[in-house]
Amino acid sequence: MEFNRRLNEIIRKRNSLLCVGLDIDLSRTPPFVLDKKEPLVYFGKAIIDATLEFAVAYKINTAFFEAYGAPGWEAMHKLANYLPSDVIKIADAKRGDIGNSSRMYVRAFFEQMNFDAITVNPYLGYDSVQPFLQDAQKGVFILCHTSNHGAADFQKFGDEKLKLFESVALKVAEWNVNNNCCLVVGATYPLEIAQLRKLAPSLPFLIPGLGTQGGDFALAVKHALTRQNDGAIFNFSRSIIYASPADDFADAAGLEARQMKEQLNQFRTQP
Amino acid sequence: MEFNRRLNEIIRKRNSLLCVGLDIDLSRTPPFVLDKKEPLVYFGKAIIDATLEFAVAYKINTAFFEAYGAPGWEAMHKLANYLPSDVIKIADAKRGDIGNSSRMYVRAFFEQMNFDAITVNPYLGYDSVQPFLQDAQKGVFILCHTSNHGAADFQKFGDEKLKLFESVALKVAEWNVNNNCCLVVGATYPLEIAQLRKLAPSLPFLIPGLGTQGGDFALAVKHALTRQNDGAIFNFSRSIIYASPADDFADAAGLEARQMKEQLNQFRTQP
Repeated sequence: MEFNRRLNEIIRKRNSLLCVGLDIDLSRTPPFVLDKKEPLVYFGKAIIDATLEFAVAYKINTAFFEAYGAPGWEAMHKLANYLPSDVIKIADAKRGDIGNSSRMYVRAFFEQMNFDAITVNPYLGYDSVQPFLQDAQKGVFILCHTSNHGAADFQKFGDEKLKLFESVALKVAEWNVNNNCCLVVGATYPLEIAQLRKLAPSLPFLIPGLGTQGGDFALAVKHALTRQNDGAIFNFSRSIIYASPADDFADAAGLEARQMKEQLNQFRTQP
Repeated sequence: MEFNRRLNEIIRKRNSLLCVGLDIDLSRTPPFVLDKKEPLVYFGKAIIDATLEFAVAYKINTAFFEAYGAPGWEAMHKLANYLPSDVIKIADAKRGDIGNSSRMYVRAFFEQMNFDAITVNPYLGYDSVQPFLQDAQKGVFILCHTSNHGAADFQKFGDEKLKLFESVALKVAEWNVNNNCCLVVGATYPLEIAQLRKLAPSLPFLIPGLGTQGGDFALAVKHALTRQNDGAIFNFSRSIIYASPADDFADAAGLEARQMKEQLNQFRTQP
């Protein structure tokens, strides 16, 4: 099935808009985790088990695994394999390179590790993104307007008529012939979410920034959803996985995930 | 020593502008390489040994190693360690994420693997690049105008007065307080090289695109060098490492590297 159709079907089936981000920093996990044979895998699996009921997608941030070298890469691979097939597995890799290099990233993330989707940086243009788009079952979340302060430096480049991030959205909508293109749009910029939903009425959005980064729930959900009341998932990383610094970290993560799911659904169903 | 000073000192000492790119694709190496215990490491070391006399820098493209999973990551680490300290080791990683994620990439590439420099994508703006810039000894090559066809899609966004890639160059020049900012500029766009050299008179350029991608030597070298006749390195990957598909691949790579070094120096010294 085409990725974007599958994403929306899973949103409906699981009645959730929640994406859980596995940005595992072992300096922030409970100390006993470090005694485990594979601390990243142990912690990640515990978080997945505790939150699975509430999530529609998991986002694995490659930075946090690469920081631990080859064992970190192996841990990422194991966690990707551990995730069941009825949730979406996103590699938050922010890759993008000239064609023959991007094809190697396709091999790493879609073939070696069987992720369902990847985040891609658009700066190098179409031929850098195109290798990721070939398989309609694999989703490509293209960075459009990010959640950080520095988003303004280049993404807002342009004039009143058209900014760079709007140009990215328009191009991505053109590239969406396989119905597997999506956008990354930060919750911390609700006006831009609304503007992007107008420019790309049906592209799914991955929206970080509601948790630790402090974005506004009501505005983000209201502006991001499509007319079909789907097409957006909201990522929480630190606020869920470090909900408790103690031995009850998994239970606390589960509780927080449930609350986030419910809070998102509340703003989803309100007119 | 500040990275940019060190780079120019090494250029002078080794009398070379040559960067060798280790984009190792095992489907293109001689068949006997696959029988080795660690084929990526074996091939990479042989290329390094054969080309070291002629090179000023090595660029390891992470895509090609990630395609082989955790063993690929381990091979990248081993090759980075194998490179001697009198050449520049560049991780061609094209990373860039919000601050706390970029800090993890710093850990992976500068602390875990001890690369001297990294390539970074500027799309997320200053706070995504800033973590890489903290250590003045580590260089940050920021993608500005890339060598591929798709470069035009977004990098040329803007009007007659200012294009995005020019805005990137101007910002990067401002960020260069630690004298460790550099730009990636494709050889396939010589007019843009000239324009960028005007906008950033002293920032070092990493220039891919002269080998398999077909850029023009004379124009690229002439336009890229600073007034001090340094400040630019030129990368060759496929044209050197696959110079011969047979058992003599290393000798052939050495010959090709010597020729590229001489050809670059020829255009360097001509007025």
